[in-house]
Amino acid sequence: MKLEPHFKLWLETEDGYVFGQGSFELLHGIEEKGNLKAAAEELHMSYRYAWGVIKKIGDTLGQPIVIAHRGGKVGGGGAELTETGKKLLETYLKFKSDLTQICSKTEV
Amino acid sequence: MKLEPHFKLWLETEDGYVFGQGSFELLHGIEEKGNLKAAAEELHMSYRYAWGVIKKIGDTLGQPIVIAHRGGKVGGGGAELTETGKKLLETYLKFKSDLTQICSKTEV
Repeated sequence: MKLEPHFKLWLETEDGYVFGQGSFELLHGIEEKGNLKAAAEELHMSYRYAWGVIKKIGDTLGQPIVIAHRGGKVGGGGAELTETGKKLLETYLKFKSDLTQICSKTEV
Repeated sequence: MKLEPHFKLWLETEDGYVFGQGSFELLHGIEEKGNLKAAAEELHMSYRYAWGVIKKIGDTLGQPIVIAHRGGKVGGGGAELTETGKKLLETYLKFKSDLTQICSKTEV
């Protein structure tokens, strides 16, 4: 009988849910590509939906997590994480990494 | 900005999902009370539903996880975990405890 542990991770504030795997992947893509449109496309999200996700998190936290670069080239979507966005990403990644490490030790 | 990590844990075999928080609570109750009816009631499950949960897990694993004591007193429901049932409970509890410990270290 081989049993493998699996988990789902998310972050909450006092007000409840803020940040899970989907938003993690989006922020990770923005950090990597410097571009919201490209990050959203890779996750098969529309640009509009992706902005909605980001705006909702920012509203919950009372601080923006992504800054858009306006007035850039056509077809742009240039964007970068704020310090708050980076902190979210790092926090999620840290816990995800620790949980993954524990859950990879299957003994059964 | 205070961020708290939360998680959901479950166990899988090669065939997929087997055991999560609900089944954990049920098995834990059976171990504690030695009685399926009492364990189910505490979780607001019907006796029939609880047996369904237990049977499904046993079918997936190809081994029973709970043995019912038949022919007992009226209003009985006496039951105990098999070795497989105990192993499931212990495995889940071990990982849950490790993940809880990690997720209680909030620094943000």
